[in-house]
Amino acid sequence: MKNITRITLLLVLFGFSGSLSAQKPADNAAYWNYAKASFPQLKELLAIPNDAHFPKEIERNVQWCEANFSQRGFTTKRLETPGAPLLLAERSARNPKAKTVLIYLQVDGQPVDPKFWNQDNPYEATLKKRTADGDWETLPWDRLDSDSIDPEWRIFARSTSDSKGAVNMFLTAIDMINDRGEAPNFNMKVIMDFEEEMGSPNLPRAVREYDEVLAADMLIIFDGPRHITNRPSLTFGARGISEITLTVYGPNFPQHSGHYGNWAPNPAVRMSQLIASMKDANERVTIPGFYEGITISKEVKELLEAVPDDEAYINRRLGVVRGTGVAPTYQESLQYPSLNVRGFSSGWVGEEARTIVPSTATAEIDIRLVLESNPDRLINLVRDHIIAQGYYVIDRAPTQKERETYERICQFTSITSYLAFRTDFDSEVGIWLDRALTNAFGETPVKQRTSGGSIPISPFVLELGVPAVTVPTVNRDNNQHSPNENIRIGNYVDGIKTIHHILIEAL
Amino acid sequence: MKNITRITLLLVLFGFSGSLSAQKPADNAAYWNYAKASFPQLKELLAIPNDAHFPKEIERNVQWCEANFSQRGFTTKRLETPGAPLLLAERSARNPKAKTVLIYLQVDGQPVDPKFWNQDNPYEATLKKRTADGDWETLPWDRLDSDSIDPEWRIFARSTSDSKGAVNMFLTAIDMINDRGEAPNFNMKVIMDFEEEMGSPNLPRAVREYDEVLAADMLIIFDGPRHITNRPSLTFGARGISEITLTVYGPNFPQHSGHYGNWAPNPAVRMSQLIASMKDANERVTIPGFYEGITISKEVKELLEAVPDDEAYINRRLGVVRGTGVAPTYQESLQYPSLNVRGFSSGWVGEEARTIVPSTATAEIDIRLVLESNPDRLINLVRDHIIAQGYYVIDRAPTQKERETYERICQFTSITSYLAFRTDFDSEVGIWLDRALTNAFGETPVKQRTSGGSIPISPFVLELGVPAVTVPTVNRDNNQHSPNENIRIGNYVDGIKTIHHILIEAL
Repeated sequence: MKNITRITLLLVLFGFSGSLSAQKPADNAAYWNYAKASFPQLKELLAIPNDAHFPKEIERNVQWCEANFSQRGFTTKRLETPGAPLLLAERSARNPKAKTVLIYLQVDGQPVDPKFWNQDNPYEATLKKRTADGDWETLPWDRLDSDSIDPEWRIFARSTSDSKGAVNMFLTAIDMINDRGEAPNFNMKVIMDFEEEMGSPNLPRAVREYDEVLAADMLIIFDGPRHITNRPSLTFGARGISEITLTVYGPNFPQHSGHYGNWAPNPAVRMSQLIASMKDANERVTIPGFYEGITISKEVKELLEAVPDDEAYINRRLGVVRGTGVAPTYQESLQYPSLNVRGFSSGWVGEEARTIVPSTATAEIDIRLVLESNPDRLINLVRDHIIAQGYYVIDRAPTQKERETYERICQFTSITSYLAFRTDFDSEVGIWLDRALTNAFGETPVKQRTSGGSIPISPFVLELGVPAVTVPTVNRDNNQHSPNENIRIGNYVDGIKTIHHILIEAL
Repeated sequence: MKNITRITLLLVLFGFSGSLSAQKPADNAAYWNYAKASFPQLKELLAIPNDAHFPKEIERNVQWCEANFSQRGFTTKRLETPGAPLLLAERSARNPKAKTVLIYLQVDGQPVDPKFWNQDNPYEATLKKRTADGDWETLPWDRLDSDSIDPEWRIFARSTSDSKGAVNMFLTAIDMINDRGEAPNFNMKVIMDFEEEMGSPNLPRAVREYDEVLAADMLIIFDGPRHITNRPSLTFGARGISEITLTVYGPNFPQHSGHYGNWAPNPAVRMSQLIASMKDANERVTIPGFYEGITISKEVKELLEAVPDDEAYINRRLGVVRGTGVAPTYQESLQYPSLNVRGFSSGWVGEEARTIVPSTATAEIDIRLVLESNPDRLINLVRDHIIAQGYYVIDRAPTQKERETYERICQFTSITSYLAFRTDFDSEVGIWLDRALTNAFGETPVKQRTSGGSIPISPFVLELGVPAVTVPTVNRDNNQHSPNENIRIGNYVDGIKTIHHILIEAL
């Protein structure tokens, strides 16, 4: 396989690919064969630790990507940042008027704690199959070289799904077009992120600084799990995220609840009242203007209803009777900003409970943003609402003088990490990817208007004006961000097929 | 002094005390002299560790009390319980028709953690004086033998104030009456508790079991700090305490706030709404019936207003502008049951905050009870209120089936540790003690209708029908339950004077 790849690569580079492009479509066996041939390379890539807190590890990953993209006809360039570099790998179409597609790949991974993994080394790719009683049994790695690979088998290692799996699918799809003499009719700019799990702190500035080299007509993100049905999927946006931390104050120090219960103001009660004042029984935000600008038109509703969600299954899995009443369906609930109390702490509970009036209560809130929600506007709405409840709002702990002056004091701090983005289904990139996936799988993909979560993509969309669509490929139950991360073999093969079809789909 | 004590003791025992009872009143110098003579015995008592978690320590304390009460003409008897015994020390008046006063003393102490103490051994009595910059400077112990003891000096050790100090004051006051040939005109039954800091778990049953030997006409409790002005004080009741633990449920496990924010029910929001539904902006409980039966009559109001509280000082110390609006004054706020949220926990805050929808929210509530508040009634009111908010209330975690059946589930557990008691100011015991303290100090004592906190006295009051009054003697800033517990020398001397005057006041 390696030799074939190199020969075709030369042909491609010297412009001979056209002569081979009439080849018949690849069949499923071809994808399985390429997948099998790619497993050693996947194992090699996964074996390089990739926690972005350790720059030396990251450097090895950068070098690996430089080598592997260079071998496949890409020119690579490091875009330096104050942290890890971004790596740009470019390969041009022959047509000088071809459009340019930016392709986002993530190479770094979540930190690992080996003691929670069911294998010695979270970076050593380990093949497993599920037993009758639901456990995972390790198989010899060379079973991946056999002729009877079960698509339900999985490879366990950090970053298999999030997202080195996608990196290797992409390289393998490139091998296919190289071998088969196919060539995308668009320029490829692959941008590799080595700090995604740290929140890509240097990405927004880098996008501004390198705006010319990153210029493109559209952006594809190969990341994340498919729709829960595991059908081929496209996701046209992501919510952003802002975070607010609130602290309200009772007595200077925790006070004896006998001596001061009924006299010292109770911050847990006050924070409860504050939170309760923000949401109704359906958990809809009651702060006026919070949902401003969002209308779910009949057309949008139809798009949302086309997503084959099984809400009964979701609810059973969550262990709840039904979702909140923010919106009638799961998909529609993602079209609104959330106001989620992710943490609340005051005094002590359980074994540590003690008979005191607590001195403070802290609530951590995250607001998932949608395209219509300007984060500063939402944050200010929340701040103004707290002021309207009679609070003196400051961004630090109060002084004794402030304590003796203001009856209700709230410390309020906020940060916005990611902005939301959303691309129309009938945009050029949307139509093109829909066609590619339909051609690949013989069915129209599940199209989500937005994912609920947040990804560091908005700088490309908002700063560079590049519309973006996510092409998720991995299984949803992949233990992303957790121990025992894995990728299902069937999804890995389908991922290669997905990317190969995108590469050969005329744009 | 020892010899004098023994001689008078013999006189007392053989009925000669009457011949000496015309002695002139003790002057302040006498109290100082007896206090000075008692410091070695106080040091000896404090040196015996008294954490009730260690029965061997407690046994040494019991033996010490047996010896020291026996020496002073008391007969002692252990009232066995499943834990530490109670010790009863009796001494009868000569008049067979004399009334009987039960006297409650606490001998055990809070656990100690020496690393938080500013002395090597928390059980080694250490004399200190305050320096100009507010620190505490150790003085040689023998300075207590000099003629110029400063009443502001303090003795630091565990249980100095809570409550071995009072035990030694009592023994010293007995020495005085023995030496001076004075005799109470009432029978004394001193009941010593060696498990108070564990909540006296065996006391209620013991009171029922030993009801005949404990029978008395009234009960005095020598425990607790004086009013904050440090004036002579009497406290005519204590609030009881019930505890409720609530847990409400969101998703089975913490869920990604992107994927499920706006869909998965948020238990922190729901618990906030539940707490908010129980109290208004003034922190008055809004559950109908919670304050039922409590009327603050004009007469009661006058009693409360006679307490010389400095609310501005209290508020400044708490670091608040004003108290809650439960009642217009601090004293009046203690006449109502409280509903205090002593702890609230859901998800994570601060450095540990993570973008999740929490799976549970737990609130710990304590209800301080007053005499009018039947604890079961209040607990049921809270439970019924939660049910009225649409919750399915159970006393354990829900099953998956219950999760899929009931939209709102609340785990509800409760316990009542102490009941409230209250004695009328114009009861026989109230009038008598008021007279004794007025005679001792030349001013009427500060009389509190109830303390805010809870003490294990209600079984005597409610089971045996013995009206109880607390006679607090120690300084309020004694670091009770904390490291560096101490007693102010001036309070110790006043305490001997207080008890001596009670012993000689005709009943």
